[in-house]
Formats: sequence, C-alpha cells, structure tokens
Amino acid sequence: MNISIIRRILGYVLLLEAALLLVPFFVGIIYREKQAFAYIVVAAICVAIGALMAIRKPKNTVFYLKDGCVATAMSWIVLSLFGCLPFLITNEIPRFIDALFETVSGFTTTGTTIINDVEIISHASLIWRSLTHWVGGMGVLVFIMAVVPLSGGSNIHLMKAESPGPSVGKIVPKMRQTARWLYIIYVFITFAEFVFLLTGGMSVFEAFATATATAGTGGFGVKNSSIGGYSPYIQWVVTVFMILFGINFNAYYFIIMRQFKKALAIEEIKVYFGVVIGCSMIIFFNIYRMYPTAFEALTHSFFQVAAVITTTGFTTTDFDTWPAISKTILVMLMFVGACAGSTGGGIKISRYIITVKSVGREIKSFLHPKSVNKVKMDKRILDSDVIRTTNLYFITFIMIFVVSLLLVSIEGRDLTTNFTAVASEMNNIGPGLSMAGPTENFYSFTVLSKLVFIFDMLAGRLELFPMLMLFHPALWKDTFKQNMNDYKKTKRIKTSKTAE
Amino acid sequence: MNISIIRRILGYVLLLEAALLLVPFFVGIIYREKQAFAYIVVAAICVAIGALMAIRKPKNTVFYLKDGCVATAMSWIVLSLFGCLPFLITNEIPRFIDALFETVSGFTTTGTTIINDVEIISHASLIWRSLTHWVGGMGVLVFIMAVVPLSGGSNIHLMKAESPGPSVGKIVPKMRQTARWLYIIYVFITFAEFVFLLTGGMSVFEAFATATATAGTGGFGVKNSSIGGYSPYIQWVVTVFMILFGINFNAYYFIIMRQFKKALAIEEIKVYFGVVIGCSMIIFFNIYRMYPTAFEALTHSFFQVAAVITTTGFTTTDFDTWPAISKTILVMLMFVGACAGSTGGGIKISRYIITVKSVGREIKSFLHPKSVNKVKMDKRILDSDVIRTTNLYFITFIMIFVVSLLLVSIEGRDLTTNFTAVASEMNNIGPGLSMAGPTENFYSFTVLSKLVFIFDMLAGRLELFPMLMLFHPALWKDTFKQNMNDYKKTKRIKTSKTAE
Repeated sequence: MNISIIRRILGYVLLLEAALLLVPFFVGIIYREKQAFAYIVVAAICVAIGALMAIRKPKNTVFYLKDGCVATAMSWIVLSLFGCLPFLITNEIPRFIDALFETVSGFTTTGTTIINDVEIISHASLIWRSLTHWVGGMGVLVFIMAVVPLSGGSNIHLMKAESPGPSVGKIVPKMRQTARWLYIIYVFITFAEFVFLLTGGMSVFEAFATATATAGTGGFGVKNSSIGGYSPYIQWVVTVFMILFGINFNAYYFIIMRQFKKALAIEEIKVYFGVVIGCSMIIFFNIYRMYPTAFEALTHSFFQVAAVITTTGFTTTDFDTWPAISKTILVMLMFVGACAGSTGGGIKISRYIITVKSVGREIKSFLHPKSVNKVKMDKRILDSDVIRTTNLYFITFIMIFVVSLLLVSIEGRDLTTNFTAVASEMNNIGPGLSMAGPTENFYSFTVLSKLVFIFDMLAGRLELFPMLMLFHPALWKDTFKQNMNDYKKTKRIKTSKTAE
Repeated sequence: MNISIIRRILGYVLLLEAALLLVPFFVGIIYREKQAFAYIVVAAICVAIGALMAIRKPKNTVFYLKDGCVATAMSWIVLSLFGCLPFLITNEIPRFIDALFETVSGFTTTGTTIINDVEIISHASLIWRSLTHWVGGMGVLVFIMAVVPLSGGSNIHLMKAESPGPSVGKIVPKMRQTARWLYIIYVFITFAEFVFLLTGGMSVFEAFATATATAGTGGFGVKNSSIGGYSPYIQWVVTVFMILFGINFNAYYFIIMRQFKKALAIEEIKVYFGVVIGCSMIIFFNIYRMYPTAFEALTHSFFQVAAVITTTGFTTTDFDTWPAISKTILVMLMFVGACAGSTGGGIKISRYIITVKSVGREIKSFLHPKSVNKVKMDKRILDSDVIRTTNLYFITFIMIFVVSLLLVSIEGRDLTTNFTAVASEMNNIGPGLSMAGPTENFYSFTVLSKLVFIFDMLAGRLELFPMLMLFHPALWKDTFKQNMNDYKKTKRIKTSKTAE
C-alpha cells in the first residue's frame, strides 16, 4: 500500500473541506448567527492538519487500484469525521454518533436525518448539510482531481473507486479534463435549478439549499415538510431537476459537443425514462382517488418516483399511507437507482440492463446451444469481465444487505421498518417505510443500528468494494508486513553502517 | 424440439401417476370412503391417455438440454393438472384454481394449503396430498428413469433439469443406476422415520402421511395444528428427519459404500449443520422467555429452523408472534434452502458457498492483482462456467421474485405478507409471515395471485430455467418453424411423387 500518496490525498481532502466550511461560515455571518464561528474554527483545524499532510511529496509514485480504493474509503471517512465537528461544537446535534450519522448521510447524498425539527437549526448548519450533498454527489476526489495535479496513475484508480456505475466512462482521454468537464456541467445545472426556484418565489437561502441538495441527489430539506409545503410549480421544478441529475453526465457532454445522436442513443437513459414514466403512471392510477385533484395526484406520483429512483429522497406527501402496490413499486425503485455516471446512488440502471441481457443470453444458449451469443450495450459488445463483476456486485450487495438487516433487527422493530431502512441507507435514498417512513426520523435507532447505517451509506455510495477492502484483514496484514520489511531494511543499513 | 420423445415421457408420467393414485384409492377403501372412487376413475383416465402417448416409439432420438427442460416443465404441469382432478370430483376442493394450487403445492413440496380445516378431509385425499410430496421431493422423472429405459442421451438432460443444485452429482457413472440408488436410499430413510413415528404413538395412517410429507420436505399436515399437537418426542423425530432429508444424498451413498471420510468431507454439509445449529441457538436465546420451559423453547427453535431451511414448512408454534430477530432469521433461512442433491428446495447452500467464495476471490484480486485465485469447493477447482451460472441463478431468482411481488401486491395486502408469501412459494416452503403466516391459509388470495404462486412454486422446484424456457417465445417460434419445414418437406415429396 502506498501510504505516502494516500496521506497526501487525505491532506488535500482536508484542505478542500476547509474551503467548503467557509460557505456556512459566511452564511452564518450574514444571518448574524453565533454558530458561524464553529465553522471557521473547524476550517482552521482542517487547514492545519491538511497542510501538514499534503506538503511532503510522496517518495513512491506506484499507485494500484487497491490504493485507489483505500484512499477513497479513507477520504470519505476523514471528510465525515471532520465534517461532523461543527454540529457538535454548536451543540445542534449533541451526540457524536448522531452528528457523524448526519454528516455521512450528507456526504453520501442519503439525506436521512436524525434532526427532529430542522426549522430551529441555524442557517449556517442547514447550508452545510446541503453543501455536503453537493460535494458528495459528484465526488470529493473527482473535485480534487479537477484542481490539483496528482501523481502518476492515481487519477484513474481514484475515479474508478469513486464514480458510480459498472465502468468508468472517460468523456475525454485525460482524467483531469473529464473531472473538470463533469464539474462544469454540474455547476451549470445546479445554477439553472437555483434560478428556476428563485422564479418560483423561494428565498435565495432556500433556493440555494434546495438546488445543492437536489444536485447531489441528497434530500436534506430546510423545512420539516421537505418539499411538501411549496407550490406545485416548485415541486415540478424539483421533479424535473431530480430527473436531470439522475441522467448519465456523458449525455450532457455529448449535447455540449453537439453530438445529439450520440446522446439520444444511450440505452440506459431510454430505460431510465421508461421506468420513471411507467412507474409514475401506475402509481398515479393507484392513488388518484386519494387526492382532491388528479393534477395533485400526478404531481405526487412523479415527484416520489423521481425522488426514489434518483435516490434523492425528498418528499411531498406521506407515501407510507399509499396502497400496497404503490409502496411496493417505491421499494423496488429503491433498489433500481439512477443512471451510471450521474450523481444518483443505488444499484444503477445500467447494471440491470447488463444482468437482464446476460440472463437472456443464458436462456438463448439453452435453446440454441451452438450459437454464439454476445451481450451488447450501446451497440458495443460487453466484456465478459464487466458482466462478471456486475453479477458479483449484485451478490455482494445482497450479502451486505442481509448482514445489515440482521444486525438492525436486533432492535426488535418490524420487518418492513428494518428492510426499508437498510434499503434506503444502502441505496443512499433517505426515507423508508413504516417506522423509517417519510414522517419519521432515524434519531431513535440504537448506536449499533446507526453504525450499521453509517457503514451501509458509505458502502453504497462508494460501490461496496472500497469499504469491504478497508475492512479486509489481508490488506492490513500486507501493509504491516511491508512496513516491517522497510523497518528491518533501514535497521540493517544502520547496523552495517555502525559496523563499518 | 424433439416432440416425439417428450410425448413419450409425458405418457410415462401419466402411467406413473395412475400407479400412485392407487395408493389413495386403497386407503379410501380401507376407511370405506366414497372418495376412493374418484381416485380409481382418475387413475383409469391416466392409464388410457398415458398408454396412448407412451406406446409409439419415437422416430428421432436426438435429445438436447432444451428438450430435457421442456419435458421436465411439461411433465410437472401435466402431473398437476391430472393430479388435481380427484379433489374436484370429490368436491373437497370445489374450485379448479384451488385444486390446482393445492396439487402444485404438493408436487413441488411447498406445502401451502388452501384448505381451511384439513381434519374434515377424507383419508384418501390426505394420503394423496402427502404422496405428491414424496414423489415430488426426489423427482418424478428420476423415478421414471430408475424403472424405464429411456432412449439415448435423455437421462442426463432430464436429471439436470429436475435435480436440485448447481451441478448434477452422478453418484455412479450411469444415470439409471444413480436414479435407482437415490430412490433406494429415499425409501429406506422414509421407512425409518415411519417406524420412529409409530414408536411415538402415531397411528399407521398419521405416521405414513407424516413420514412421506417429511421425506419430500413438503409440509402438508393431517392436523390443523400441523405437528404442534404431537408430543415433544414426535416433534424431535420430525426435526431430525427433516434435517436428514435436507442433506446431499451423495453423503448417504458414501456411507453405504463405507467411504466415511468422503461423506464427512463434503463442505456443503458442514455449512448446513453450522447454519442449522447457529440459527437455532440464536432463536432459542431470543424466545426462551416466551415458553414455560427452556426445553420447549429449544424444541420450537430447532423445529422451525429445520422446517424452514429444509423448506418443509411444518409448524409447531405460531412463529409470527416471535420477536423481530427470530422472524428475520427465519425469513433469511427461507432464501437459504437445503443442500443440493437433497429433497429440499430453496436456493441451496452450495450456491451460497460458491458465491461467497467468488466474492472473496474478487476482493483478493483487488488486493493482489497479479496472483491467480481459483475458487475451490470440496478440494476441486470450480469451473468458471459453474460460477457464472450460479451467479446468474441468483439474479434470475431475484427477477422472478420482483415480478411476482409486484403482481401479488395488486391485491393490496401488506408488504410483509406479499414478500414472505412469494419467498415461501418460490422456495417451496409453505408458510410465510403476517397474513401468509403459519395460522393462516392461502384460500383468500385472488386467482391472479394464485396463478403467480403456481408459477413460482414450479419455477422454484425446477430451478427456474425450465419454466422460463417453456414461456420463452423463441422456443415456440423454433418449434413452429421446424414443423412447417417438416410439413413442406412431406408435401414436396408427395408433390414430386405425384409428378412422377
């Protein structure tokens, strides 16, 4: 393991976090809130530690995929550990485990909160929550890559570990350029939503918080009723932008490059729109008698489908009161997720396309044993390696899911609560059903369950393997052995020098 | 598709069914029940149609895996269609869909009943229900293979399609010998249980019905309280035999051949015992305060764990009232299933071993990219094809599961009911939780849901692919094309003959 590069990356992460912390600081200053000072204090701590860690150049530039995974997992943990300090200092969230939960929920764009009444929280802290979504959505390391020149082969491995989806789509040959393009598109669409929300009568503060939380497909709201209290116009704006942020960003790049045909040809996006419209319509027909007007029912059905499939997790109504079929569809959508290469979480549409096609191939090969069947996506033949790892992804997902479910069920809550809570956390959505439903919050879960959820949120956001590797004994055994060898070598050199 | 061989196999299936129907007929005669005549009438129908279908020798002996799959799927459907007739004729189950559901539940060894009060059902019909379990457990075609010499390569393909597990374990080189050995062992252990149950004070009728239902890991009981009303001795006998029938039958063959080391070395069996004992102990500690004595709690926990993991589905107590963690464990065990090559259903332990190991290899290959990691089971390197199809099995399972859940949820019942009901049917267990729980029955589900369950039970018992293939349009398009070609060829020959 290349500890020196990882140290340096963690240093940059802390410096980035310091810069981000300035935003809630200034917001706090504008609103004359004493909580602002917590943010500047933590920013100072991050600068000090971050600079110390980033200043020394690494001696060794060899950087494997495993280093990329470990660096990514540790970056997100460090980010969350420091990011939760302001909540503790301001005493807005007094317990460490709760503050950590809230921050991890922010960075992983989950949006599950343990705060019962968000309307008494300071503006500074509300903006910090939304901002964690925004940075977490596109990726912290992707951001660092876009601004800091990292050594050697580290870019591709970091990108692989942090970007969502079965395979990394480089838009342009150079990773750094890709990272920049992604952030340019991201800022632009976020700003567009901000303007649309302002037009709908939101305050600058609310529009900024809502736009950044939508952009990261996060789901922290600044009102207790989430988006439920706003006008239908605002609800539709948020719906449309949730859907837009769930699209593979490659499509936007193609549009900018005026390659419209290429953008329209992406299979995943077609399926995505099909699922969104299909599920919304089924739910609409299922619930339209529950609301005064058909338009209101349509608004809620499209909003909730978009909120769940993109893993944003905003709510406009208590869907826990909907009939069984609508709830079942929402639970299924939890496991679907948005497009690969978007800011959305979940398992991702493209993984489903790959697996459905590979099952189809299997049945075909039963029927015509002699024919050669290749799995194709977007007119290209898929590598058997991609199919294998995609299948393994599902299975690993289920394994983590089952262990989490078992650990959470120790609390003794009902099966629906536990099942949907774990599903919601692992897929970075936000609300579940029953006691984890949209009108509830996660404050009352035990510390053990919260730790499980924290692991699940991080594992879900980082696509499982980085977190599994971090906890794999072989990694630490190897690292320990390597360090011992280095130490022995240095000792031997010293001894031989003394002997001379 | 080789229609002539398939026709012949279906003929044998009907002849076998006729022979089986004689058992309830004689039982009915002994108890002087008028229902007995329904069984002899249906037996006569089966003989007539079966003989007609089996008498003509097939012209073409080429038999592919797809033919094996189609023959198997159709055999089970034909078996169930004729097997449900006695229930209709005796009017003990008046509706066709219910009678079909009950019969499919029998043959697939599911054991879910739509009969509200089994104690008013005739002895003939009760024995018929238990007998369907017994034949379904080891396999109808395996039985036919053991007694009738089938043509050419059909044995291996039928065995592959009907036997449970990721790969067919031939005990002896010849399939026919293997089939015979399996049935010899099966009869012997069933008889052993019968004797033990008699010793415990059960009547011959009860002991026979219970032993056959346990042997097939079915779960139809002859009392409304299932096994709950019997003595702890009987409950423990059933527990032990459920566990024995869930073991890979290869182990028994090795024991008969005095190759004890080989029997003990089977990895799957070790894991199986580990899971049974581990889960039973957790449940015991979770529920022991709910029962008057610790022994009673231990009895229930071992009984229910064995009943669910072997997919038998007998009950001794209403586990729907158990605390969350015990219920969660039972729901998980539903998806585990017994050993491959046993009479138990479910996904099978060996599939889990294979997938867990392949995930482990994946993580290892991240950590040590250059090392070659092979997945081993029972000290042999697993073929990458087995790993691939095992992974696909899980994914196909989930797909069928999700579609079924969606269709069943149209009824509007709660998520726990629908989820556990589909899980219970697909894994051929019997009871689920909530409104599908051990004290409920499936009578009140709609026709649509029952059709879904019938498909799920058959798909689960036949390991998914045979049923999927039967409903794949490509199969019928091919067959139609082939027949058209044959027809054209005959016509051409005729025309050319006329021209001469």
